[in-house]
Formats: sequence, structure tokens, C-alpha cells
Amino acid sequence: MRVGIVGCGTVGSGVVKLLLQNSSLIERRTGEKIEIAFVADKNPEKVKSLGVPVDRVYDDGFEALKSVDCDVIVELIGGTTVARDLIIEALKMEKHVVTANKALLADYGKDLFMLARESGVSLKFEASVGGGIPVIKALREGLVGNRIKGIYGIINGTANYILTMMTEKKVDFYTALKEAQELGYAEADPTLDVEGYDAAHKIAILSSLAYCRWVKTENVYLRGIREITPLDIELAMDFGYRIKLLAISKLEENGMEVRVHPTMIPENHILASVNGVFNACLVDGDFVGETLYYGKGAGEKPTASAVVSDIVDLALGNFYDVPECLFEKSEVKIKEPDEFVSSFYLRFTALDKPGVLASISKILAKFGISIKMALQKSVTVEGGVPVVMTTHPAKKRDVQKAIEEIDKLDVILKPTFVCMIEEFTNE
Amino acid sequence: MRVGIVGCGTVGSGVVKLLLQNSSLIERRTGEKIEIAFVADKNPEKVKSLGVPVDRVYDDGFEALKSVDCDVIVELIGGTTVARDLIIEALKMEKHVVTANKALLADYGKDLFMLARESGVSLKFEASVGGGIPVIKALREGLVGNRIKGIYGIINGTANYILTMMTEKKVDFYTALKEAQELGYAEADPTLDVEGYDAAHKIAILSSLAYCRWVKTENVYLRGIREITPLDIELAMDFGYRIKLLAISKLEENGMEVRVHPTMIPENHILASVNGVFNACLVDGDFVGETLYYGKGAGEKPTASAVVSDIVDLALGNFYDVPECLFEKSEVKIKEPDEFVSSFYLRFTALDKPGVLASISKILAKFGISIKMALQKSVTVEGGVPVVMTTHPAKKRDVQKAIEEIDKLDVILKPTFVCMIEEFTNE
Repeated sequence: MRVGIVGCGTVGSGVVKLLLQNSSLIERRTGEKIEIAFVADKNPEKVKSLGVPVDRVYDDGFEALKSVDCDVIVELIGGTTVARDLIIEALKMEKHVVTANKALLADYGKDLFMLARESGVSLKFEASVGGGIPVIKALREGLVGNRIKGIYGIINGTANYILTMMTEKKVDFYTALKEAQELGYAEADPTLDVEGYDAAHKIAILSSLAYCRWVKTENVYLRGIREITPLDIELAMDFGYRIKLLAISKLEENGMEVRVHPTMIPENHILASVNGVFNACLVDGDFVGETLYYGKGAGEKPTASAVVSDIVDLALGNFYDVPECLFEKSEVKIKEPDEFVSSFYLRFTALDKPGVLASISKILAKFGISIKMALQKSVTVEGGVPVVMTTHPAKKRDVQKAIEEIDKLDVILKPTFVCMIEEFTNE
Repeated sequence: MRVGIVGCGTVGSGVVKLLLQNSSLIERRTGEKIEIAFVADKNPEKVKSLGVPVDRVYDDGFEALKSVDCDVIVELIGGTTVARDLIIEALKMEKHVVTANKALLADYGKDLFMLARESGVSLKFEASVGGGIPVIKALREGLVGNRIKGIYGIINGTANYILTMMTEKKVDFYTALKEAQELGYAEADPTLDVEGYDAAHKIAILSSLAYCRWVKTENVYLRGIREITPLDIELAMDFGYRIKLLAISKLEENGMEVRVHPTMIPENHILASVNGVFNACLVDGDFVGETLYYGKGAGEKPTASAVVSDIVDLALGNFYDVPECLFEKSEVKIKEPDEFVSSFYLRFTALDKPGVLASISKILAKFGISIKMALQKSVTVEGGVPVVMTTHPAKKRDVQKAIEEIDKLDVILKPTFVCMIEEFTNE
């Protein structure tokens, strides 16, 4: 199998290193020889320094694609413009394509997979979610016999590192972010990671695989982690929860919900043990029950491992990329955020005077929201006292309306902080 | 794809139910129709009660195999006699075979896979390890680009349930076993599970896949969990460890080690959060780093999920069963237990008098064993006081010799309890 690699940044370098180092092991295992046909990057010197023979190094991927004989194109350029053009070009030339490009797949996947189908080739993307963790393979092949009920992923390492630091070191968001940036775990502009866009791309891809319905980034309800404070992390712990940026998708009778937001999860749940830059994805199937896939979700070497598994799959004739049913008309509805039903954590900032709890409870009751636990802390925060509650499952719309009314009370000093709770009791 | 199922006990029933319930979903996903060609069981009435059409129900698997047209035989008889004959027969008839039979594969795998190869068919076995968790697929396909450095599995749900109960409820082994039996998590004769044979079968299979070297059950160093006491669990917790029945295999420069034994692991390691009947398998690869696969390791429905994933793989033309290199002569040596290097936990039962610690330490020093932490508990156990130590990494042989000498001391009242510690610091 002759492989052309376009883009030799972090992941591209990892793929080159892996193939140079382990391709004889791969051949011993599978009988298939994986050869680097070319590596194209606008910095060809860097490619040469990795040990790629000079005559296989190109500075233009499109040119290499046209002039070099190869079976698979590995797109590791990133972005949704040039990368997209290259993939389209390669598919039209009836080359298989392997990519790690989650943003591209989340937004243009449907057309690209359709084109691959028309060209009789395969578009593989294991590295697009969960770095080195073979979660796409697990979901698509390992659990192929299951109706998928839910997916719960900690699939952004940057956000998880920041929340872990905030939890363990009791520092605030900006301190943790700064540390993550210094360690190379966060970009200078961390928006994609901390606002949840990256996790949204990934849960869109996983949901599409799971439910026979294309899900795009714009279908994902999104909230980032900037608003999380050390106080909420501490209060969550008082209630037995940890806060994670969780990407959730569920298929229920009345539709699918797909969302990414800070979520409180029980401290004894296995996902609560996923810390630092590690990723994990829990998949709940009707026969298999809950399974979880854990590992490094990013980085040169783990991501290279995933890219190479796709290449070897193609070499072995495993061409399954996305489910057939994705090309049929889907009847699955995607729910509006208003319709979400969840337990909630509510932190009110109130004046320290009698009757506050009564006023709050009355409004909650009016909207049919039932309180599970309540806690009033004898500390002063932003001029008031934190009044904290968790609710039994309630409609997000009702909670929002109640909060709007509560926040208008004279005794409430600040907008109320709201966080959804995931109890994992669906089974 | 026409499937013949032989054996309709727990797992067989699950497979029949899954195919009856979800085969249209599978067809929508993959375009492949999975049809039950026949189900054979010595209790045909049971099969009929599941909804299998009467004309496809047989009481003899060999007869069905000969008379019914099918592409895949699913062997779910269990044991290593009739099951083996059936698989041989099916492979000779050039039928693909899917099995969940870990004992059979661990001991006769080499010949069976060779026969499959000669017949040009595939022998698949996802359900043989970790129930519904697609860990075979992950190891064989998802991590195919990695040199595997180590595998660490909690792969026996019965043992894990018992140890979890002992930890959480502070009960002894026999009380926990009885509870497990009452709940159906342990057999009336629990030997296979609590003595580690079942885990040994499984780690033999995983190791064979990982290291290009056939590993049989007899190559696995084995110790069960009967000897674990609530005291050791409590003392382990004092040192920051949890006790798990861990199946471990590592490939190092001087050979491979494969072992199943109670192991202390750091309480903050993700494997320490794998509780109850859940299984998990951590695989450490040179590129991917540590990945973990978690889920239900047994039971009708999870195991059926794994069996069906093999069937669908075959339908889609993914015939990869075991690495090619397993049929070459292997140069990988399997280490003797004496050569294992590990940190150790040692619990001495000593007379409560001065100089005990000095006598013990002197002998340990003589054998070059360095103490990491020591703890003397002011409780009386079996007429003495527990003196507990953890060591820095030491050779098992040296530790054994030191213990033999220490146990001869007048101040030592009982044979010393020894447990290996896994710190997961290989990376």
C-alpha cells in the first residue's frame, strides 16, 4: 500500500516517524507493506530532516497527488479550505483518503463521504476523535450490533486539563489556562477548546455514526468552561460531583439531543477518574451496556497511531467508513435545547436575610421544578451568600423561566449560575 | 451472510435475541443481511421459545453443519472437546468460525488458527476476552501500528466483584464469594475465576496478539485471590493502593512476562476505579501510550454484542484474525517467575517486641532489597502484630529467598504475606 502524506506538522511528523519506525512490525503482523510514496509540506526541509528520502519530498500536495503513484492520501493539513479541496481531488482520482480533520468532517462530511462512495473508495477518520483511542472503530465496528442509546465524551484534553487543575489545585480558570498554555496543552487562542467547538465537532461525528443521522456542529448545543469558578467546583464536590466538559448525545423516542457543556457527574463514576489531558468516551448500547474508551486524545504520537490504523485497515480491505443509512432520509429529529430534560445545579447569590429560600423555592415550585438537595454556605461571595440547590429532572425551558423570574427578585444579587447534572441512570 | 449457531446457553441466547432484534439495524448500517441459518442445541425447545423458526432448530450441531447452507459457524458450546471438534469440522468445510471460547483458544489456538489459514477462512474471537468490550479489535486493529509494551487487565468480573465487595463492605473473601454466588456473579465452583485460570486464558490470548508469540495458559504465572484478607486491603489503602486481580503481560528487552495475581495499584490510577463486575484492559503502546477499554466482561447481552461484531466483520470482508507473525518462529522468550522485577508489599506477622524491624530489615538488606515505606500497626492479628513494608523494585527470586529466611526467625509467627505492586511507571 503506497501512502501519500500531505501536511507534515505535528500529526504528519508522527505518522512519518511511526511508518519509518514500525512499518516492518506492521508488515510482520498483517503481511502488508505500508510504503511512504511521498510527503508534501510547504516546509520540505523539515520533512527531509525526519529521514524521508529526498525524492519523495514535495512542497505541494496537489502536485504530488498528480504525479506520484499512490493508493491512499493522508490529509493532515487542517482547516476547511485547502484540506477540503485536496480531499475532493484525491477522492475524484479514486484514492482512499485518511484524515484527522474533525472540523471538516463535522461540517462537510456528508458531501465528502458521498463523493467517496461515488468514487468507490473509502474516507477514514479514526484520528478525528479521541486521538489515539480507537473509539471510531469501537463505535462503528465493535458495537455494530447495538442500538446506541447514548454517548458521553470527555473529548477535549485542553478543557479537561484546565478543569482538573482547577479541581486539584483550587485555582481559577485563567490561572489554569495560563499553566496549560505554558505546558503546550492549550493554544495561544484557546477559543476552540475552552468554548467547546472542538468537542462539538467530535460529538457531531460520533453521533452521525451512532444514529444514522448527519449531525453538524450547528446542531450541537454549546457552552464553554470559562464561567466555571473554583467555588462551583468545591460546591459540586460537597454534593458528590465533579465538573467535566462533557459532550453528550442521546437517542430517545422523541428525538436526539446533542450537547457540549460543563456537566456535573457523580464522583464515583468512571468518567470522573478521567483527568488531565486524557480523553474518554463512554458509549451505551442496548446489548453491550456501558463501555468506555480512554487514552491520550491528542499529540503527535497518539494521533499518528490512529492515522496508521486507518491506513492498515485500507491495506487489509476494511473499507467501512460510515454507515450506509446515513445516505437515506433520516427520520430522527434533533431536539431544541429548551426540550432537554436534566437534573440541574443552581447557585443563587442572595442577600443574607430571612425568607430567601422560601422565595426561591416558591418560584421553582410554580414551574414544577422539584428540589433534590439544598445547601446554604456561610461564606460571602460577591456581596451575598451562595444558596445552592440540585433539582430532580426538569425541562431546561422551565428551569430557564424560573431562573429569569428568580433573578428579578430584590434579594438576588447576581445572575444565577446553572449547570446540568448527568446521573447516568438511563439504564 | 448466513449464520449457524451451535450452543444456545447464555451467550447463544443473547446472539439469537440480538439478531432477531437488531439485524435490520445492522443491515441499514452495513448493507449486509445477517440471517440465522440454524440454531443447534441439545434443548431445541429452548431455542424455539426464543422465536427461531422451527425449521431452523436442530438438536445436533454437527448434523446442522453438514445439512444447512451457511457461511459462518458460531461455536458457543464451551469446553475444549466437542467445541474443538466442531470448530475443526467447520474450518475444514471452509466455513468461517466465530467463538467466545477462551480456554480452547488459549490451549489449542495455534493449531486452529493454522487450520483456518490453510482453509482460507477466518477464526474470530472478540467475545473471548472482556465480554462486550471490543478489546481484541482495539489491540489487533486499532493499535496495529504500535509496538505493544504492556497489557494490564481486570478481566475476570467474578474476582473483581469479590475484591470490590471486600474493599467497600470490609467483609472477608468467603462472605463476598457467597454474595457473588447468590447474585449469579460466581459459579457454584468458583475455582476458574477466583484462582485466576479464566484471566490466564484471556491474557494468554491478548499476549499472543500483541507480541507475535503464542502464549499458552501454562506460560502464565498464576496466583488467585483466596489468600487476600480484609486486613491487607485496609493496609493497602493506608499505603494509597487498591488490590485487584490483575492480568499483566509486558514485553521487555530480556523477554516477555505474563502473570495473573492479586496486585496493588495506585488508588488514583484509572484501573483502581474499575469496580464490581466491570472489566477493563489497559494497553500500552509505543506511539499511542496508555489506552483503556472498559465495560461488562460477561453476560448474555454484552457477549452477544461481541459475537455479532465478529459476524458483521466477516460479512464486510474483514477477515483479519491473528497476526501473520504468529506463524513464524518466535525469538521472544517467556521469563520465569523468579526473574520478575517488581515492587512488593510484605506483611510480616511478628511478636510485639523490640528489634523485630531491625532483624527483618537486615535480611532484606542482605538480599539487596530496599524498603520504600514501613508501617507497624498497633493491632493484634493472629497473636502478633502486622509489620508492613513496601519495597523498591526487586527481583522476585531475591524477595522469595529473603522471606524464606525471615519466616524462620523466632519473632515471626506466620508465613509472610507477599503481594506485587504495579506502579505503572514504565512510560
